[in-house]
Amino acid sequence: MNWEDLARELAYTTDSKIVLLVCDGLGGLPVNGKTELETARTPNLDEVARLGVCGLTDPVFMGITPGSGPAHLGLFGYDPLEYQLGRGILEALGSGVEVGRDDVVTRGNFATFKDGLVIDRRAGRIPTEENERLCAILNASLPKQDGVEIQLTPGKEHRFVARFRAQGLSDALSDADPQKDNKPRVPAKATAPEAERTAAIINRFLDDLTALLKNEPKANTALLRGFSKFPSIPQMAELFKIRPAAIANYPMYKGLAKLLGMDVLKVGADPADLFDALEREYAGHDFFYIHYKPTDAAGEDGNFEKKVAAIEAVDKFVPRLLALKPDVLVITSDHSTPAFLGGHSWHPNPFVLVSKNAQPDGVRAFTEIECSKGMLGRFRSLYAMPLMLAHALKLKKYGA
Amino acid sequence: MNWEDLARELAYTTDSKIVLLVCDGLGGLPVNGKTELETARTPNLDEVARLGVCGLTDPVFMGITPGSGPAHLGLFGYDPLEYQLGRGILEALGSGVEVGRDDVVTRGNFATFKDGLVIDRRAGRIPTEENERLCAILNASLPKQDGVEIQLTPGKEHRFVARFRAQGLSDALSDADPQKDNKPRVPAKATAPEAERTAAIINRFLDDLTALLKNEPKANTALLRGFSKFPSIPQMAELFKIRPAAIANYPMYKGLAKLLGMDVLKVGADPADLFDALEREYAGHDFFYIHYKPTDAAGEDGNFEKKVAAIEAVDKFVPRLLALKPDVLVITSDHSTPAFLGGHSWHPNPFVLVSKNAQPDGVRAFTEIECSKGMLGRFRSLYAMPLMLAHALKLKKYGA
Repeated sequence: MNWEDLARELAYTTDSKIVLLVCDGLGGLPVNGKTELETARTPNLDEVARLGVCGLTDPVFMGITPGSGPAHLGLFGYDPLEYQLGRGILEALGSGVEVGRDDVVTRGNFATFKDGLVIDRRAGRIPTEENERLCAILNASLPKQDGVEIQLTPGKEHRFVARFRAQGLSDALSDADPQKDNKPRVPAKATAPEAERTAAIINRFLDDLTALLKNEPKANTALLRGFSKFPSIPQMAELFKIRPAAIANYPMYKGLAKLLGMDVLKVGADPADLFDALEREYAGHDFFYIHYKPTDAAGEDGNFEKKVAAIEAVDKFVPRLLALKPDVLVITSDHSTPAFLGGHSWHPNPFVLVSKNAQPDGVRAFTEIECSKGMLGRFRSLYAMPLMLAHALKLKKYGA
Repeated sequence: MNWEDLARELAYTTDSKIVLLVCDGLGGLPVNGKTELETARTPNLDEVARLGVCGLTDPVFMGITPGSGPAHLGLFGYDPLEYQLGRGILEALGSGVEVGRDDVVTRGNFATFKDGLVIDRRAGRIPTEENERLCAILNASLPKQDGVEIQLTPGKEHRFVARFRAQGLSDALSDADPQKDNKPRVPAKATAPEAERTAAIINRFLDDLTALLKNEPKANTALLRGFSKFPSIPQMAELFKIRPAAIANYPMYKGLAKLLGMDVLKVGADPADLFDALEREYAGHDFFYIHYKPTDAAGEDGNFEKKVAAIEAVDKFVPRLLALKPDVLVITSDHSTPAFLGGHSWHPNPFVLVSKNAQPDGVRAFTEIECSKGMLGRFRSLYAMPLMLAHALKLKKYGA
């Protein structure tokens, strides 16, 4: 019996409310002796640390650097070693492509085809504007296939997302990609009989695209990789008996939330909009996931000062969370993004949980080291959800 | 998906270097209020604790006292609950017997046979010199079997290791041991059809041995237990994409390292030779396992003062490790050996990791209690390898 089985057995609906603020990439590493969190002035986060019980979380396990998908899955109570989201679906979500249960999505590259060979799998990294122009042409001009809707969404440079919408599609397909330059084009192949029709649709699409673009100097064909359907993953409402809402202003996180059955609330682009939405919609749900991106963005840029500023900026919103008096408030991150490394890392996440049913543990600052002294110790992010539900009195006793 | 699967997916080769110093049996228990580590003067180990991030490890899980095999497997990134090394192979490695992929090895006892019964399964614990004399006779005089090479290596008192080398041997064999005194001799039996020929070779050997020794007063037959082939275990180079070297001066640890595909470096018997070898061979590998035995030996003797001295002795070599500036330096032990208990124990191991990609956590002394306050918390030794690879930037991101 694992956590998922236990959740199905023990979770039940109550009026209590849980607020989970994810400051993306919050944890860091010292530069001049102090981490971003240690450098930032964070009177409100420190107050939360004093009010709550603290710890450090590992998103997957010690030493593993997670992508955003696995890192969030863990926080939402799904074992990221069990649920793996395909590259196509994540790329689609990250590009803001709406994915339904009948769709197959895939990553695409524009490529250069000459004398029967793919001579450049990235079409010389054409400018993004070129990519946008080509996707517009293709969306307007691709020959119709019966009962099939195809939509291309441009990404950066030569990258795009293709969405195929039709009844009965399957993602049991090999990549339509020769993997190396100077090889012939490769069709998608069905790896299971039920995908034969999908393969035919996709290969017809690739031929149509290649015909339409035959006079383009560089981007005159395309490769497709990572075919994915909407993953079949238990919904949060069903597993945890909650009515979850997602408050995020980046497509990737909205898409992830949608995969898990959260209501994705309408939010503007400004961080303040997150907290406005929470206050506005507070009555209608009992679990709120708020995603704050600037901490991660600054870390990815390797910009220590900008990350410090992003932390100080989110700190100012914290009193608004406390003012709502949720039964459980958790502030943490999905993974660390030290500016020192300029990318996601394996370092653990500061974690604080405030609840009248929790014991404050004497931690007085919301930093990596101080959280490591908290009563929650160091634990997998997977246990964040049982802890939140438990402190909100949403879990029954296990056994008699 | 477990760590091994993840390692295959995420590990990649870089130039960064990892040095792992295993002070065997380092952790202890208080005598007169202080453990061996707390009693020893260890300015250099304490400096390493200040520079690094600390924790405590459980080799298997809490409460389990490991042998050297499981304890080391865990540290090298192999789950000791999944990989179990046969007693025969460990005894062979511990006796310095070279084991190849075609060999079957087994533990042996000289025993006393009279009137059709094994009347003493340990041959009155004959002196080791007697054992050595008998093994020499047998190695010289055993009748040849076609295509089979048999070698006995004496151990202490009545114990030896037998190695059978031939094409197509199998270790699917029951023990050739009546288990109790005053029972008839028992042949090895094949527990799978492919072991029939091996059983015949071994039983012929036992009969030949018994015939050769028929005039010995005590040691006039032998029992064989724990038949093992070279275990099939993934190699470190393949799993972790590293070029590992083992620097050890005891046969058991060299043998274990060989099982995992490490290059076993030539080292003299003196502890200083370990560090000479590291400096000499530093360019040729990217992962160095250094095994320091005196801490365990003193603990096994129940000699607290000797263990303190062994700790102070290894402390003096620590600056040579730091001088190499490895990307990752870990100092820990495989298991604890408190002098108070005079043997291996289940107590956790002090652990410190130094890397520019790690956050020093304020721990100022390398002792059991101080390490328990470190940011790594308490964790299974199995996570030492992901942590080392991660801090050396040898692991890619998991998922997108």
